[in-house]
Amino acid sequence: MKKIVTFGEIMLRLSPPGFQRFVQAKGFDAFYGGGEANVAFSLAQYGLATSYVTKLPKNPLGQAAANELRRYGVNTDSIIWDKERLGIYFCEKGAAMRPSVVVYDRAESSIAKAKKGDFDWKEIFKDAQWFHFTGITPALGPNVAEVCLEACQAAKKLGVKVSCDLNFRKNLWTSAEAKETMTKLMPYVDILVANEEDAEKVFGIKAENTNVEAGSLDVEGYKAVADKLTSSFGFEMVAITLRESISASDNGWSGILYDGTQFYQGPNYMVRIVDRVGGGDSFCAGLIYSLISGYEPQEAINFAVAASALKHTIEGDFNVVEVEEVRKLMKGDASGRVQR
Amino acid sequence: MKKIVTFGEIMLRLSPPGFQRFVQAKGFDAFYGGGEANVAFSLAQYGLATSYVTKLPKNPLGQAAANELRRYGVNTDSIIWDKERLGIYFCEKGAAMRPSVVVYDRAESSIAKAKKGDFDWKEIFKDAQWFHFTGITPALGPNVAEVCLEACQAAKKLGVKVSCDLNFRKNLWTSAEAKETMTKLMPYVDILVANEEDAEKVFGIKAENTNVEAGSLDVEGYKAVADKLTSSFGFEMVAITLRESISASDNGWSGILYDGTQFYQGPNYMVRIVDRVGGGDSFCAGLIYSLISGYEPQEAINFAVAASALKHTIEGDFNVVEVEEVRKLMKGDASGRVQR
Amino acid sequence: MKKIVTFGEIMLRLSPPGFQRFVQAKGFDAFYGGGEANVAFSLAQYGLATSYVTKLPKNPLGQAAANELRRYGVNTDSIIWDKERLGIYFCEKGAAMRPSVVVYDRAESSIAKAKKGDFDWKEIFKDAQWFHFTGITPALGPNVAEVCLEACQAAKKLGVKVSCDLNFRKNLWTSAEAKETMTKLMPYVDILVANEEDAEKVFGIKAENTNVEAGSLDVEGYKAVADKLTSSFGFEMVAITLRESISASDNGWSGILYDGTQFYQGPNYMVRIVDRVGGGDSFCAGLIYSLISGYEPQEAINFAVAASALKHTIEGDFNVVEVEEVRKLMKGDASGRVQR
Amino acid sequence: MKKIVTFGEIMLRLSPPGFQRFVQAKGFDAFYGGGEANVAFSLAQYGLATSYVTKLPKNPLGQAAANELRRYGVNTDSIIWDKERLGIYFCEKGAAMRPSVVVYDRAESSIAKAKKGDFDWKEIFKDAQWFHFTGITPALGPNVAEVCLEACQAAKKLGVKVSCDLNFRKNLWTSAEAKETMTKLMPYVDILVANEEDAEKVFGIKAENTNVEAGSLDVEGYKAVADKLTSSFGFEMVAITLRESISASDNGWSGILYDGTQFYQGPNYMVRIVDRVGGGDSFCAGLIYSLISGYEPQEAINFAVAASALKHTIEGDFNVVEVEEVRKLMKGDASGRVQR
Amino acid sequence: MKKIVTFGEIMLRLSPPGFQRFVQAKGFDAFYGGGEANVAFSLAQYGLATSYVTKLPKNPLGQAAANELRRYGVNTDSIIWDKERLGIYFCEKGAAMRPSVVVYDRAESSIAKAKKGDFDWKEIFKDAQWFHFTGITPALGPNVAEVCLEACQAAKKLGVKVSCDLNFRKNLWTSAEAKETMTKLMPYVDILVANEEDAEKVFGIKAENTNVEAGSLDVEGYKAVADKLTSSFGFEMVAITLRESISASDNGWSGILYDGTQFYQGPNYMVRIVDRVGGGDSFCAGLIYSLISGYEPQEAINFAVAASALKHTIEGDFNVVEVEEVRKLMKGDASGRVQR
Amino acid sequence: MKKIVTFGEIMLRLSPPGFQRFVQAKGFDAFYGGGEANVAFSLAQYGLATSYVTKLPKNPLGQAAANELRRYGVNTDSIIWDKERLGIYFCEKGAAMRPSVVVYDRAESSIAKAKKGDFDWKEIFKDAQWFHFTGITPALGPNVAEVCLEACQAAKKLGVKVSCDLNFRKNLWTSAEAKETMTKLMPYVDILVANEEDAEKVFGIKAENTNVEAGSLDVEGYKAVADKLTSSFGFEMVAITLRESISASDNGWSGILYDGTQFYQGPNYMVRIVDRVGGGDSFCAGLIYSLISGYEPQEAINFAVAASALKHTIEGDFNVVEVEEVRKLMKGDASGRVQR
Repeated sequence: MKKIVTFGEIMLRLSPPGFQRFVQAKGFDAFYGGGEANVAFSLAQYGLATSYVTKLPKNPLGQAAANELRRYGVNTDSIIWDKERLGIYFCEKGAAMRPSVVVYDRAESSIAKAKKGDFDWKEIFKDAQWFHFTGITPALGPNVAEVCLEACQAAKKLGVKVSCDLNFRKNLWTSAEAKETMTKLMPYVDILVANEEDAEKVFGIKAENTNVEAGSLDVEGYKAVADKLTSSFGFEMVAITLRESISASDNGWSGILYDGTQFYQGPNYMVRIVDRVGGGDSFCAGLIYSLISGYEPQEAINFAVAASALKHTIEGDFNVVEVEEVRKLMKGDASGRVQR
Repeated sequence: MKKIVTFGEIMLRLSPPGFQRFVQAKGFDAFYGGGEANVAFSLAQYGLATSYVTKLPKNPLGQAAANELRRYGVNTDSIIWDKERLGIYFCEKGAAMRPSVVVYDRAESSIAKAKKGDFDWKEIFKDAQWFHFTGITPALGPNVAEVCLEACQAAKKLGVKVSCDLNFRKNLWTSAEAKETMTKLMPYVDILVANEEDAEKVFGIKAENTNVEAGSLDVEGYKAVADKLTSSFGFEMVAITLRESISASDNGWSGILYDGTQFYQGPNYMVRIVDRVGGGDSFCAGLIYSLISGYEPQEAINFAVAASALKHTIEGDFNVVEVEEVRKLMKGDASGRVQR
Repeated sequence: MKKIVTFGEIMLRLSPPGFQRFVQAKGFDAFYGGGEANVAFSLAQYGLATSYVTKLPKNPLGQAAANELRRYGVNTDSIIWDKERLGIYFCEKGAAMRPSVVVYDRAESSIAKAKKGDFDWKEIFKDAQWFHFTGITPALGPNVAEVCLEACQAAKKLGVKVSCDLNFRKNLWTSAEAKETMTKLMPYVDILVANEEDAEKVFGIKAENTNVEAGSLDVEGYKAVADKLTSSFGFEMVAITLRESISASDNGWSGILYDGTQFYQGPNYMVRIVDRVGGGDSFCAGLIYSLISGYEPQEAINFAVAASALKHTIEGDFNVVEVEEVRKLMKGDASGRVQR
Repeated sequence: MKKIVTFGEIMLRLSPPGFQRFVQAKGFDAFYGGGEANVAFSLAQYGLATSYVTKLPKNPLGQAAANELRRYGVNTDSIIWDKERLGIYFCEKGAAMRPSVVVYDRAESSIAKAKKGDFDWKEIFKDAQWFHFTGITPALGPNVAEVCLEACQAAKKLGVKVSCDLNFRKNLWTSAEAKETMTKLMPYVDILVANEEDAEKVFGIKAENTNVEAGSLDVEGYKAVADKLTSSFGFEMVAITLRESISASDNGWSGILYDGTQFYQGPNYMVRIVDRVGGGDSFCAGLIYSLISGYEPQEAINFAVAASALKHTIEGDFNVVEVEEVRKLMKGDASGRVQR
Repeated sequence: MKKIVTFGEIMLRLSPPGFQRFVQAKGFDAFYGGGEANVAFSLAQYGLATSYVTKLPKNPLGQAAANELRRYGVNTDSIIWDKERLGIYFCEKGAAMRPSVVVYDRAESSIAKAKKGDFDWKEIFKDAQWFHFTGITPALGPNVAEVCLEACQAAKKLGVKVSCDLNFRKNLWTSAEAKETMTKLMPYVDILVANEEDAEKVFGIKAENTNVEAGSLDVEGYKAVADKLTSSFGFEMVAITLRESISASDNGWSGILYDGTQFYQGPNYMVRIVDRVGGGDSFCAGLIYSLISGYEPQEAINFAVAASALKHTIEGDFNVVEVEEVRKLMKGDASGRVQR
Repeated sequence: MKKIVTFGEIMLRLSPPGFQRFVQAKGFDAFYGGGEANVAFSLAQYGLATSYVTKLPKNPLGQAAANELRRYGVNTDSIIWDKERLGIYFCEKGAAMRPSVVVYDRAESSIAKAKKGDFDWKEIFKDAQWFHFTGITPALGPNVAEVCLEACQAAKKLGVKVSCDLNFRKNLWTSAEAKETMTKLMPYVDILVANEEDAEKVFGIKAENTNVEAGSLDVEGYKAVADKLTSSFGFEMVAITLRESISASDNGWSGILYDGTQFYQGPNYMVRIVDRVGGGDSFCAGLIYSLISGYEPQEAINFAVAASALKHTIEGDFNVVEVEEVRKLMKGDASGRVQR
């Protein structure tokens, strides 16, 4: 089977155990994650041939990051190595009305110093059918944005389908910067994914009747957003995840898919949160898997939403679930009865 | 006071800490449990003289299993020993719509190789007033089913009351096998306990208007089930636990008791789950304690349901609660206010 | 800025990890806490100069208790040392309808043996603007009650404002004893704080239409309580915390403030509990901070309620939150969205 | 088989994990131990019927202490219960030249408040063959010393052999106090055990050519000590453990036995220390087991020394080894080859 | 580069943390290991293309075992899957004179049920240069011995070099059984590795002047053993590891290599043991790596001994060291100075 | 008492638990440390007024670093804050011949970006008697070297004594760079400390007859080094620590002191290592404490060596020992007997 390639930054995530706050911690649990790495993880877990591309430092920490992907079957042969550092993020888990807090320490990482020509995209895309990246990667720096463009162009040239998760990160760039760079990349993107805030933050396309902080979302407004995105950039498909933030412990979770003609709305799950990091990434992976598997749009959005709802019950960034588990939930069994 | 005897398999339970999935785990918390061992634990905790009978390997793991019961006051002098193995089960904790998963590794255990004549039932039942077993034990193999029959016959002969928890386990035997074997044992049983699925799975007696997977239960349907069971096998009493599986994190929990004449319905608790394994066993223990203590049927079912509701808040298979705690909840204080 | 002084007992708190019960525990997490120490912690965390006064044993355990406060910026220079012992309390975390259990082992502690003349209050109150203590401290013994009186008198003499949290503890004294002692201390108190039970337990002033065990509270009844307290003792202000104990996992949390003229009601939060110990103390600290900062009464009660609602999401006795976090919640953002 | 009875104090031991010092600890591992409890543990582990007598508080902590003994087969039916407290000791593990540190918090414990008449010694010694206590128990207070005397007298009257481990604890009493009290108890003692310091500290009988702090011991000197002890009190046997404290990580360990006629010297082990607490107690247990089993004196001292050498490799106060393991070491296999 | 294939059983290893004994454990650290899996791990760590062949159950536990190898770069594509169970072994760590204890629970595992024809050896050996197995694998049962023979025959036919580590396990078979089966396999073996006991236990070839239990080894005696093995079976090379068991904490470690003409003796390391499991396997891997890399015999035995000496300092079965680390030690730097 | 000021970088240290290697770790223990912070810690622990100066990021990680010093009584009021990052170092613990490995991730930290004028040295040195820094701090960058010079000049001007630990770090700068910069700072230094390699690495002053890698040191050679250093730079005193690296588990440890006239040699300890990081820093602190306390040179070097020998038995960078403990060891009690 032809492989899927994802490209971005994988970081070491350090989290105080349980609900400890940073200043209370006497140690950290170690996870690894990053937008595109999380997608690669899920696709490998679903049985697809998946290759993850990044730049890592040649030290035990960089090796450990690559090993964690390799452990779950992601191909890491296209990773390149240097002497810089592994990006780190510290993540403290919230509860009830206390939000989770993330402290990034990712500047000057190996991938943030990657530049045009570092990667042999022609070789990387050999036998590839799909390329996925997120808005985080070009935000790492103009040099990395150039690498993204280079990758997108190579993908298009080689007939590889391209998906992008907008994933706006305000601590990496401004909306203006994001708009300028992402606008250049959009022509190469076939499938766009965004969350309830991204379209507004990046392209200024705002959903009506929605107040994200207050946790109330209006699906109709997002249909309009999807429609505008499609008409602006000519995407084949646009998917939007819809999170209702009731508290740090409970979220509503859904998503919609627009194929340029029709809207498909996924189920709405009320999730008791174990770890919500990587929720959007697991949605992307679910969507990519569905489309590669030839699912109809309604089934595709259902799979993507169910898969990513399950992510919220899994510790770490990676969505450690298999296809059968997602399909069982899709069929309506959310009873959580013990599987013996 | 005359003792209670329970007979079955106690296993080492290995659970990844917190909400980790099996493939993420770098270690396991160790618990010990098994249907009848869990009942013995509770009865000892309630202050009754309790003896647990099984066969264990004479190695540090078998010793540790026996020690865990002895620690809480269960008499383990009737355990017999061989050179086989301790049954193990791996249990991963679910959350929200992700179910808990159990992987059994119990084949070829010491107790699964027990055979007629291994146990001196006459000696075991000396000074005994009650014998309890579950449908799991005869399911371990025809040889163990024969031991059960032998025990039941000895109990009856010696005037020891017999209770059985149907506890159907589809990975141990088929419904047809269960029906054949359990039908032979039922004549010796005075008190039968079942959960919302067992009667159908073992004897084909189905509750109307109920969809277990969808989490909706109809009490009336279960009254009919209890009635049919009684008329088929002439039980003195039948009790049925009723679990509404809202999710892996939240369950409704109740139960009914039928004394051949009248139905008694227990309270209905909505439980935030810490660990639901052993819920049914703690119900059995609550019921046995109540009946031995001379409670009226309504009080008995109330005690059994309250005790087993509390089990869902306790880590491990054993229901580490005392009589006073159950009675406090029975009296209506579910406020969870700190006890200083 | 002039400092705040708090005086009382800090204890080592030993809690089994997670939801383990005492008899299951193979180890304990160590925290430190005590009514007035918790208040000192919060005020230091809010950036105020805070001094904590107590008596501790001169051994590594006493040192560790002082260090934990010093770590977070509380001044510990006024602590005095002897050869007795550090008070301990064991705290087991409840869930759902199973309450948390506290076993005190605080008798014969260094502070419980403190006596009049041990502390140089004149020196301690130099540059002080506020003195806070709770009803727990005089309950430690008649000798400690005398020290409290001594401190109150010195505070009054030096123009230091005095606040007191009634905090009735039935395992330390009877209602009659509490009434007798607290009545003597009340004349020195400017701001009184109480929870939904204290006024009744200490002064026999009961709220109408309220059943604490059943978890239903009537705000109007508590206004009457505040009014009676004010008219009896001439307080400048009275604040009452209102906890609705739905279960050990979920509580409603609010509070009211009465300035002798008008009632101010705080918001009502539904809290998913991580650790509720120290909830009332964090309310006191929020109130003291608000009043020192010159907040209007409505803003003050809002801050105090929001701060203490957050406490329920923090492990340990100390409310590890900063002013900005409280203010963000006060402004209505309880969505728990990740802070990146 | 006739049982062995031991009487004393069992405490909760709280140890920071690994080599952490108290002021660094964020939690404690929980063990249970005490001189006579440790002896009871070993004897039960060796397959003898053993009963442990003490007074404990009727709370979950007291229960946990009793449970830990019950878990390993010690009979706890003669324990009596009150409302006081469980003794605690904090123990920090040393390394190399840094010594282990123990902070006792045992005052006012339930057993320290026991008094004459609390225990029904006639009932306790029914079917008993041996009674063991240590010098720690009478040191808990004059009231407890009286209970010891009462027990010794009852034992003698009922033909129960009595052994005592001198075990001088300078933080519990002075040498003068110890001498006065122990002198009254010695007439009832058949077998006396002491370590390299006890005879001097309690009875002023000093070994020549020995400097305990410098870690050099002279066996001949200790033979003279044993001889003097025997001639003073008429013991049937005297055993002395000999520890060479090279560092907190490495100790030499041996012992001698004197039967009033001849000296028997045990082997000398160089032990890499895991946990040396309970070393002397495990020696006593080894000796008692040997004598009850009818071992010749040389074999007895060999068993006692080998058993207690092994204790130094075991975490906690209890010597978790079986007879076969001790005998294997006695036979000279100290190679530590993996036992598969 | 042509790959190395190893074939055998990988097990879940469950070890109580630290120095806890089995009956004390409340949890287990999880490792994975097995003779040939450990060799595969090391060779992958050294940068060689390595494929591990076994049969595993298709459940999360089997998957976790495969993942652990995949994580470190071992190719797991030739693993086949069934519905049986994963072999387990429990391993308790010794100290000083207390030996480590292993309790096997490996019967009825997936690989133990493998049979002739299960594996496509022709495909597996495509592009292979080396095949390694140990005496443990044929000991799993006559059926597995047949698979070994099948593999050896295929390897020989395809020009793949074969190495075997005798690795006698007395709990799997008798010396007579081992001799019979291993004698049939030896004709296919080019390089034989054995420890200080294997040659005697399997082929009755005993080293003179050596007492394994007493920890004294005579190198000359082992040269004679190597010579006899070579003359009996015509091996290209024979290597023997020499362990001096001073205690469970300290071992001497060395090895010799015989190329049919000359003896090469490796260095002798005195190792402070962290975890000695897998010592012999890491020696095999070091030897195979050396020979594939074209090292001269003296350098090869030096590398193999240094690599396996380092294994004793690593937790778990896998020798987590890289070539550069081994070479640094070979060059004589055993000073352990911090590498910054 | 006049205070001691130290200035440098404090980092978060992340260490895999126990002997795990980086690639095995699933979490990290968190410590905080840095050359001058470690010195400040010890001096505060010894009861001296100590102030630590650095620049930290204003986020929870920077706060936690400052809190850890504050916890142990170090004054942190002179720390300044920015928006950069906290330096991190990863430290993996070695054993036997496997060395500990440190991976630095300290570039771009807040302190590395400090520049002349950031600190108000006049204010900082108010009431100061001593200033200590190490060669690590100027190595952080030319800008930080300038700050060091600025501090040294201010100290000299204000009559504050200056000590410097050469502490060459090859991953921060070359010997040539170090020589150039350190040569400019030396004129301000009164007391110089160096380890067995520093003088050669920084100033090219080599000890004769010494091979550091081989672990053999010749004291005479180091006397010559001290003499040359003194004659070159006119130090008041020079101290050199002498480590004999036998293995990662065992080190010899000593030191010499030269007061320009006479050499004083400290005791030589053989240390079983728990954690050797911070050994040199604890030596500096011991020396500074001794000199401030007016110890004679021989007593001073004895104290410094004993204090730093103890450091090797303590987890983390901080030498958690008190004056009494050091003095006890100085007096010759290295027996490690339990302190009850």
